Amino acid sequence: MKSKKVAVIGASGYSGEELVRLLLNHPHAELVTVTSRQNAGQTLAQVFPKFASHPKSKTLRFVEPNAELIAQQAEVVFLALPHGVAAEFAIPLLNAGATVIDLSADFRLKSPATYLEFYGHEHPAPDLLKKSVYGLPEVYRETIKQSALIASPGCYPTSILLPVIPLLRAGLIQSAGIIADSLSGVSGAGRKADLDYLFCECNESVRPYGVPKHRHLSEIEEQLAFAAGAPVTIQFTPHLIPVNRGILTTLYLNPARPVTDAASAAKLAEQVAAAYHAAYDNEPFVRLLEGKALPDTKNVTGTNCIEIAWRTDPRTGRLIVMSAEDNIVKGASGQAVQSLNLVAGWPETTGLV
Amino acid sequence: MKSKKVAVIGASGYSGEELVRLLLNHPHAELVTVTSRQNAGQTLAQVFPKFASHPKSKTLRFVEPNAELIAQQAEVVFLALPHGVAAEFAIPLLNAGATVIDLSADFRLKSPATYLEFYGHEHPAPDLLKKSVYGLPEVYRETIKQSALIASPGCYPTSILLPVIPLLRAGLIQSAGIIADSLSGVSGAGRKADLDYLFCECNESVRPYGVPKHRHLSEIEEQLAFAAGAPVTIQFTPHLIPVNRGILTTLYLNPARPVTDAASAAKLAEQVAAAYHAAYDNEPFVRLLEGKALPDTKNVTGTNCIEIAWRTDPRTGRLIVMSAEDNIVKGASGQAVQSLNLVAGWPETTGLV
Amino acid sequence: MKSKKVAVIGASGYSGEELVRLLLNHPHAELVTVTSRQNAGQTLAQVFPKFASHPKSKTLRFVEPNAELIAQQAEVVFLALPHGVAAEFAIPLLNAGATVIDLSADFRLKSPATYLEFYGHEHPAPDLLKKSVYGLPEVYRETIKQSALIASPGCYPTSILLPVIPLLRAGLIQSAGIIADSLSGVSGAGRKADLDYLFCECNESVRPYGVPKHRHLSEIEEQLAFAAGAPVTIQFTPHLIPVNRGILTTLYLNPARPVTDAASAAKLAEQVAAAYHAAYDNEPFVRLLEGKALPDTKNVTGTNCIEIAWRTDPRTGRLIVMSAEDNIVKGASGQAVQSLNLVAGWPETTGLV
Amino acid sequence: MKSKKVAVIGASGYSGEELVRLLLNHPHAELVTVTSRQNAGQTLAQVFPKFASHPKSKTLRFVEPNAELIAQQAEVVFLALPHGVAAEFAIPLLNAGATVIDLSADFRLKSPATYLEFYGHEHPAPDLLKKSVYGLPEVYRETIKQSALIASPGCYPTSILLPVIPLLRAGLIQSAGIIADSLSGVSGAGRKADLDYLFCECNESVRPYGVPKHRHLSEIEEQLAFAAGAPVTIQFTPHLIPVNRGILTTLYLNPARPVTDAASAAKLAEQVAAAYHAAYDNEPFVRLLEGKALPDTKNVTGTNCIEIAWRTDPRTGRLIVMSAEDNIVKGASGQAVQSLNLVAGWPETTGLV
Repeated sequence: MKSKKVAVIGASGYSGEELVRLLLNHPHAELVTVTSRQNAGQTLAQVFPKFASHPKSKTLRFVEPNAELIAQQAEVVFLALPHGVAAEFAIPLLNAGATVIDLSADFRLKSPATYLEFYGHEHPAPDLLKKSVYGLPEVYRETIKQSALIASPGCYPTSILLPVIPLLRAGLIQSAGIIADSLSGVSGAGRKADLDYLFCECNESVRPYGVPKHRHLSEIEEQLAFAAGAPVTIQFTPHLIPVNRGILTTLYLNPARPVTDAASAAKLAEQVAAAYHAAYDNEPFVRLLEGKALPDTKNVTGTNCIEIAWRTDPRTGRLIVMSAEDNIVKGASGQAVQSLNLVAGWPETTGLV
Repeated sequence: MKSKKVAVIGASGYSGEELVRLLLNHPHAELVTVTSRQNAGQTLAQVFPKFASHPKSKTLRFVEPNAELIAQQAEVVFLALPHGVAAEFAIPLLNAGATVIDLSADFRLKSPATYLEFYGHEHPAPDLLKKSVYGLPEVYRETIKQSALIASPGCYPTSILLPVIPLLRAGLIQSAGIIADSLSGVSGAGRKADLDYLFCECNESVRPYGVPKHRHLSEIEEQLAFAAGAPVTIQFTPHLIPVNRGILTTLYLNPARPVTDAASAAKLAEQVAAAYHAAYDNEPFVRLLEGKALPDTKNVTGTNCIEIAWRTDPRTGRLIVMSAEDNIVKGASGQAVQSLNLVAGWPETTGLV
Repeated sequence: MKSKKVAVIGASGYSGEELVRLLLNHPHAELVTVTSRQNAGQTLAQVFPKFASHPKSKTLRFVEPNAELIAQQAEVVFLALPHGVAAEFAIPLLNAGATVIDLSADFRLKSPATYLEFYGHEHPAPDLLKKSVYGLPEVYRETIKQSALIASPGCYPTSILLPVIPLLRAGLIQSAGIIADSLSGVSGAGRKADLDYLFCECNESVRPYGVPKHRHLSEIEEQLAFAAGAPVTIQFTPHLIPVNRGILTTLYLNPARPVTDAASAAKLAEQVAAAYHAAYDNEPFVRLLEGKALPDTKNVTGTNCIEIAWRTDPRTGRLIVMSAEDNIVKGASGQAVQSLNLVAGWPETTGLV
Repeated sequence: MKSKKVAVIGASGYSGEELVRLLLNHPHAELVTVTSRQNAGQTLAQVFPKFASHPKSKTLRFVEPNAELIAQQAEVVFLALPHGVAAEFAIPLLNAGATVIDLSADFRLKSPATYLEFYGHEHPAPDLLKKSVYGLPEVYRETIKQSALIASPGCYPTSILLPVIPLLRAGLIQSAGIIADSLSGVSGAGRKADLDYLFCECNESVRPYGVPKHRHLSEIEEQLAFAAGAPVTIQFTPHLIPVNRGILTTLYLNPARPVTDAASAAKLAEQVAAAYHAAYDNEPFVRLLEGKALPDTKNVTGTNCIEIAWRTDPRTGRLIVMSAEDNIVKGASGQAVQSLNLVAGWPETTGLV
């Protein structure tokens, strides 16, 4: 299989580090450039001792990010940069002909107005919003294959969209009244020196944050609207929990047709199962839980899989759906590599477990 | 102040151990008896080295539980026993004239029919359900003072009832559509040798369980119905998170009058604040959070306090209320000692922080 | 009992916060001043929601540190400041007649030469080294009572000195060849925004650091030399482990008389037990473990106690001693309050558990 | 490359589960049988949802262990069984011609007398002790390739032997006075329902155990004696720390030639470096740390690597060596697969990272 040269811009954060891990072990991707302002000049092995057993770790050195130079070196460039900074790098890279897989939120929205509402300023390159594809392979696989700008989804959105989209599309739930209650590991906050994320502030602690209007709502609602064919407003509450990795989302959904007793609850459960199986039976990274099993982040940590389970409640008439994923893999870097595989024409599971 | 002799039946579990800790340090309670089948014959210091600095720990020995004998030794008896076992001990203790503070679910329901529905068999002593009081001091303070049988609430119910009852009473929320999403530390599962609660099964793991019909729903709904003056059915999803102690509950509530914009959202937030201040400004163990603060279990761990915060969402029209408590203190043993203080006529905060 | 006005300088770190907790709940100490540059102007309740239930938390506001002013307000001043900064504050406070209890390393050494060796610069006030007392109550109780400058010991030194001093004094061990292998919770690193102490860097991680010459060696060796009557050089290896609080120290000691078989091993174990009981039977905060029990940090967390256990090994001829303490309580703030109690003439256990 | 059929006996514990994970993803090993008494009849996917994405997980079912049957199905059989039980299974498997890789301690010792001393009863098959090879590939690679019975080393022994053997062989350290202070994650205790290993008993806890004579001492000392050419007695103290995986060992070693000043300390450090590089530069799973880096379990978790660093101390004259490994991978199942690769003639790193 033909290999491709790839670069990671911003390789010292948690997503960047995980990209490096996945790409070092990828059989066809050739990691040629890693950038980091604070680590420029050091080898991969010096910054990340965990990679020191890989032969390339002793020779590959972090460099200052330089879009023009990188576009000459790499065919596919991953951006693991903060919001706002990513757009600045994407433009010259695209102009120079590189394929960009952006892990930030900069190109995830289609609507410049929504961008303005949630991010507080005009989008710096609204034309690119039209060209970018939302990098959720289970939904946009064919478009991703053709795209030069892939906006890889956020961790919370992935944990919500994959369970909800098939139900909206199948008409099994109302688009109104959706509630997503999410629990995230601390790596979701990034590797930044902030008192709030010190060990002693997170360990033996559980807390909500960003209530009630978290920025990621914008991409979630936009994508749900595409699936529903109408605007969608959801309730979303993120919580910080003391694990390194993992997102567990519990969704409270209103069935399209009333559930009033055990029979209608059982029937809906069957319809939901059918919709999920139709959508995901051929998906290598979506795991539908059967029987009594419920999602558990420890079963997906380190993998690109998302677990989904569902229950109908005849007492309340609601449908409860739960998902678990690794926020840094399926929620970030693994999903981005999944897009790389699509772009490159490799089997979609290459280099991923 | 007159002291009282107290006993703890089932003192080797987490609630029992915490009762022992609180009672050893209580200035007026005299701990005279602790029982545990598996530890009978051993001193407190031998079973719980952490208590070894207390003088009584070297002399007080665990004994086999014997209701008749205990009723002669103690005026107030705490039952920290599994469901079903507690009722067996309560009856002879009450007959012998002891005051019983039961931490199990055995006497928490008023309706024998609800008991049958949720526990799968007839209640063994339905007459006692009429005599027992639900031991939530913020709601039933005066009745607790007069009662010989106090059914101390569960940890999840406490975290839900204290935030919701004032809102139902003030008519600010609908009784329909209440959702409680709760996150509990592992001590809530009790000290029992079960693979599911091994360190390696809980650490780096987050998972829902008991979906959608957890037993504690019965007492939550019954108490909410008393506050609402009508039957209440709620959605409740418990999750297990890797902390020793703490419950964080996020509540999704439907306002009684529609919230449609920023103004109506702000107005509701004020009304909620007023209702909470009216209900809890004199409560020593309820902490209403002001400004930007949100509940965090680490701020209540080891204390009998519950933190409550609220937000209104003009986008969805919902009211979000969040609470944090220590499941073993305010959610179990501390609340039981709070009832002891009421029964004994001591200041309610005696021996509690 | 006569109360005393006290101040905490540097109350926003972990030791400072714990001092505030202990002093707010102390029956005779009156906390009148708390300082913090970054939190100046805010109330205790705003900075530490966990203290919000204490009435004083709503009125006591952090101020900028000002030694002259503080000396007018408080009779006893706790310094919870970084190394070097503490000395600057101590001098004017002492000149103004305040009693200073310093939690930093600034006044712990008697030898200015040792200070120079370990800290890399001349001591700023060598005269004060003569006047200060090393604030280990179990060793210097009577001197502490008379002292205006108390250098409260570090967390690692406390965990080593309390087990070793009685053995050196009793002549049971050689002063040569002592090895102290210590494991510390992350709070020992302080509340500072440093990538190394982020949750994700510490959780699921164990690592040594500061090998082989940690600064705290200086005070440990000086105090052991006083006990041995001769210079002592020890091997000390600290490790960082993923708990909030606690230090577990394992000591490898060479017996003064050879242990060559089961009989001599058993005899030494008895002599060690006798030395410990003679030294500590009346000490409220030293817990000697009997039988099969070994120290466990969870048994001392939140308390001012240190647990000590010992084993002799007939195979190797060595004596193994293990200790456990809460690094922030007995290793810092609790021990400082113990000194306050001595200075003020209150029972030594006042306000401590 | 020719594939081999393999079986895992006792696949429900932590080592067994990790073997399954490694073997499912191994390109040449074909996992044909997994046994577990309590899970017999269930599929891999039912017992371990984390494996559910692997196609084989839906069809491969746990069976009751039956040595005769297994010997017909598999060419190489892994035993992940408790001590004592493993020997019972090994004998018929070997008789039937299978290659056995045993993860228990049953065949690790060469001396039946030592076995008797440490395990309290005669070895059930002393003849097999002569035929077995101690499965440490870095030491016994060529023998392993030829052997039908491989006694895969324990987790603690691996963390001690790999750092110490090259130093003994090079004559750089004395064989007397070796101290190994080890910190282990909780998975080392196995997946068993025991109160001591519940989440709440291990989290926020650090504790020594098995002091001073842990069973694994026997294999450590025997292997060190082979390297030293003389009997070796060491001091070994294991501690339990709250991580899922990882062993950090700190070794205190006496140099063969005295270290008395900075120059002799630096010279020894160079000699140690030379010895390690000579021994391990071609070893894919041994990582020698350069510069300021010290071992950290998080850098080896999930991998078959061991990190080693060293420091000489001119103050004490000692050599300090530190190692970090994943107790379940290099300390158990990964190392066993490394032996499988040797036995099968595959590249030694196949299926391992």
